Amino acid sequence: MKGERQSDGSFEYRASKELIVRLKHDAELVQSIAELARNNGVEAGSFTAIGALKRARLGYYDQKSHEYREMKIDMPHEMASCMGNVSPKDGEPFVHAHVVLADEAGNTKAGHLLEGIVFAAEVHLHQLEGTKLERKYDEVTGLSLWITEERTRGAH
Amino acid sequence: MKGERQSDGSFEYRASKELIVRLKHDAELVQSIAELARNNGVEAGSFTAIGALKRARLGYYDQKSHEYREMKIDMPHEMASCMGNVSPKDGEPFVHAHVVLADEAGNTKAGHLLEGIVFAAEVHLHQLEGTKLERKYDEVTGLSLWITEERTRGAH
Amino acid sequence: MKGERQSDGSFEYRASKELIVRLKHDAELVQSIAELARNNGVEAGSFTAIGALKRARLGYYDQKSHEYREMKIDMPHEMASCMGNVSPKDGEPFVHAHVVLADEAGNTKAGHLLEGIVFAAEVHLHQLEGTKLERKYDEVTGLSLWITEERTRGAH
Repeated sequence: MKGERQSDGSFEYRASKELIVRLKHDAELVQSIAELARNNGVEAGSFTAIGALKRARLGYYDQKSHEYREMKIDMPHEMASCMGNVSPKDGEPFVHAHVVLADEAGNTKAGHLLEGIVFAAEVHLHQLEGTKLERKYDEVTGLSLWITEERTRGAH
Repeated sequence: MKGERQSDGSFEYRASKELIVRLKHDAELVQSIAELARNNGVEAGSFTAIGALKRARLGYYDQKSHEYREMKIDMPHEMASCMGNVSPKDGEPFVHAHVVLADEAGNTKAGHLLEGIVFAAEVHLHQLEGTKLERKYDEVTGLSLWITEERTRGAH
Repeated sequence: MKGERQSDGSFEYRASKELIVRLKHDAELVQSIAELARNNGVEAGSFTAIGALKRARLGYYDQKSHEYREMKIDMPHEMASCMGNVSPKDGEPFVHAHVVLADEAGNTKAGHLLEGIVFAAEVHLHQLEGTKLERKYDEVTGLSLWITEERTRGAH
């Protein structure tokens, strides 16, 4: 049933609003998508974005030390791919975004998107209707993860 | 309301048809997606594609000179990611596509996809129903952008 | 009409269930998405995933020899992008996934995802309702491709 946790650990949602926006020149991408979600009551959703950034900060999560390493990207880049999801964290829409950036030679830098200053960006946020997708601290990874987890066996 | 510009500057759409197609060997990807949209009356939509290209032309938009630089990719590559949108421009479906290509060593070239000759490609075009997503010349960027723009403050 | 092959060679589907799941730590990503599809009766669908992998095996398809070359990625990477589709093959859900991985310096490796061991991963599987998306051996490419093919002219 919609919004209920299923026997395999997944949640079932239904599509709702499809929000399309061009972000403002000089806006910050992650915060802008969070505001789009907040303004439209989106509690769960997926998004994609394309365009170009003036500069960005990427993150790489160290799977051993459980800390994010930050990388500053201080040059303009195409945003060759940007995808992610929205779900509540501490009562506010939290945006989890990953990005692939490309420079003038087509070379790439990629990772978790901490901050991206928009040159031009087109966003499609696909709202999902169902249960709340809550995040909770997970000891194994040190990350704040959805409480839903698949129930299949791992491939150790 | 569906198709109306909302107070935050975004447009609200509803999902409509979901079009799935395998592109023809030797077809040109950008033009093929435009034809798919035209044949099916898609005036707004998002797409993803995976597969492999025989060759491609990528673009990087110079944020200062406001000109595209072209890169020829004359070798076969996996299309590790391809995403974008469809909206009308001068009365015809216009495809805005970004791509990440991978060579035989897994190394990448990425950017705006100007042209891609298909080895094999699977496309999912997600039609959106609502207002027309018109593009208009934007002086700040020199690009043809959607008239919708978010109304939040920038992060100067 | 829904599920029927259209005159341009594409198939028209409708959105159905939207499945959200966090994969298990140490699960194998491709197999987990196949299980998610099997458990929920998904016969056609598109998915995206973000998160991080402990290790992976990527594929590059040699367009001349018609063989996959495998690359072992034995280090942790962010999964900067992961997208693909689900359709039946030999009566079971078959997952076609492409991925862009990023290391601690933001450098990328990308390609066809043969295997990915999950550190943490969030998956959105968008179920499509319509006809069966069957795969069949294609002589030109040596791949198992959807029987649907666009009917536009190629760009030789």
